[in-house]
Amino acid sequence: MTLEIDLLTQLRGIATHPAARGLMDDAAVLGDLVLTHDMIVEGVHFLPDDPPADVAWKLVAVNLSDLAAKGAVPLGVLTGTGLTHDAQWNAAFVDGLGAAADALNVPLLGGDTVAMPAGAPRTLGLTAIGRATGPVPARSGGAVGDALYIAGTIGDAGLGLAVAMGQMAGPEALVMAYRRPQPLLEMGQALAGQVTAMMDVSDGVLIDALRLAEASGVGVAIDLDAIPMSEAALSLGRDRAARLRAATAGDDYALLFTSALPLRDLPGRPHRIGQLVRAPGLQLSDGAGPVPVPARLGWLHQG
Amino acid sequence: MTLEIDLLTQLRGIATHPAARGLMDDAAVLGDLVLTHDMIVEGVHFLPDDPPADVAWKLVAVNLSDLAAKGAVPLGVLTGTGLTHDAQWNAAFVDGLGAAADALNVPLLGGDTVAMPAGAPRTLGLTAIGRATGPVPARSGGAVGDALYIAGTIGDAGLGLAVAMGQMAGPEALVMAYRRPQPLLEMGQALAGQVTAMMDVSDGVLIDALRLAEASGVGVAIDLDAIPMSEAALSLGRDRAARLRAATAGDDYALLFTSALPLRDLPGRPHRIGQLVRAPGLQLSDGAGPVPVPARLGWLHQG
Repeated sequence: MTLEIDLLTQLRGIATHPAARGLMDDAAVLGDLVLTHDMIVEGVHFLPDDPPADVAWKLVAVNLSDLAAKGAVPLGVLTGTGLTHDAQWNAAFVDGLGAAADALNVPLLGGDTVAMPAGAPRTLGLTAIGRATGPVPARSGGAVGDALYIAGTIGDAGLGLAVAMGQMAGPEALVMAYRRPQPLLEMGQALAGQVTAMMDVSDGVLIDALRLAEASGVGVAIDLDAIPMSEAALSLGRDRAARLRAATAGDDYALLFTSALPLRDLPGRPHRIGQLVRAPGLQLSDGAGPVPVPARLGWLHQG
Repeated sequence: MTLEIDLLTQLRGIATHPAARGLMDDAAVLGDLVLTHDMIVEGVHFLPDDPPADVAWKLVAVNLSDLAAKGAVPLGVLTGTGLTHDAQWNAAFVDGLGAAADALNVPLLGGDTVAMPAGAPRTLGLTAIGRATGPVPARSGGAVGDALYIAGTIGDAGLGLAVAMGQMAGPEALVMAYRRPQPLLEMGQALAGQVTAMMDVSDGVLIDALRLAEASGVGVAIDLDAIPMSEAALSLGRDRAARLRAATAGDDYALLFTSALPLRDLPGRPHRIGQLVRAPGLQLSDGAGPVPVPARLGWLHQG
């Protein structure tokens, strides 16, 4: 993780164009274009035995989730795929890419394909280009008193990863949440004009909420019991430990946002989980009272 | 190379949106946006001991060269950088990225940084976004009788790579041509409205000319003696073998284009090297008569 943080700090020094938003946001905003590029690397962001079509889905979905968090309509994607000589894997990956692009209604516009040297992991990048539907919310727009919301559910993908890795038994729906995240594009577009700040939850709701608060120059208080969890996740535990596990797991691709006003005309019902507060940092509580903030707030990539 | 060709064939099956141009062009063209993404992988597209700032330059330059070939003005770039834990290399790379972005006048808008697993090669991708300045030339617009031109010089980078690898002695200018290619943005913009077809030369002028001809449904005849070479390259040889070597080397990032009319108002003088002909395939000649077409027409990535 240190590498990514070190690099990001250095990159911020050169990404001085306002469209880069200081590399502090989910995406760049250039006029009405919203642009994002995320990479996934075998052994780091996906498992070597994950089905290739699911890897392709994830590559598209995680990038469209960044567009969702900015309320943008996807215009197209470009891929950068470093693959191995496993022709069967590659064919299944391309089929999956086409299926994901169809299902998520975004055209593949171009990109590059390279053969990785022998022994190197598959290394996949994708650039998603979207068009803003109005003002593009930043992470940094929250203010003290704003309510904090989640659209989507939290913790499914983290449990699904544990199931996929054979660490625990659990419903297949959780594995699907890990392998086939659904970018909340319609919700993001409906929310964009109503929020003060918005981002997608990719590393865990606690760490991402703290990032939103810090970007906004405030603190955040979260009611652990209010964090929305699916029936499948709740079937594996609903106590404080289970809720903390969900709130610190990654790969949710839910939307996390703040608003000062009542929400309206949405395709679903977001859950209010807390609010922005004056005191810096993160305060946690549940029905039983204050909850000690865990040392590890989210999923940090090993590397 | 088979991997890339196989994959490209499959990807063409799913990239059916007109903006993708059938994945047959240097870039995607979506309205007035021109979009390209190229990857470079350590050990495949650059040498492990290439200076990091030069690697960063190349990453930016090869993508801007694709925009140049479409006559586009660069709006910004997004990077996808898979790096190792060599902090000194990484810092020099980011410095070089900033310097390249400054020198080539394109802002860094965003991207992603990941730590590659231990032992994996650095894997770098970049998306360049440009705005068209008028009609965007394709590779496929050439017609029988059009003159074929090169803007820039051919063969320097191939010789520079050989010098950098210690395979031969030669002027430093050639190594710089390999490490610091100059995208011909101004020339591309001036040409875009005057050409019938245009592309950049990345894999060798013979193979790329054949690609342009095939995309246009015609053949091509090239006068080997007319291919522009630099004084530095000519200092290492000017006979037919040297010219064939230059014409089949990669990484030139010159512009290759066709036109039916005299050219005007250009920032430099392109060289007429041949013309499009009815007979399919490639015909080569020089002052001494017909030249047998070499088996290897360009630089194909090993992998």
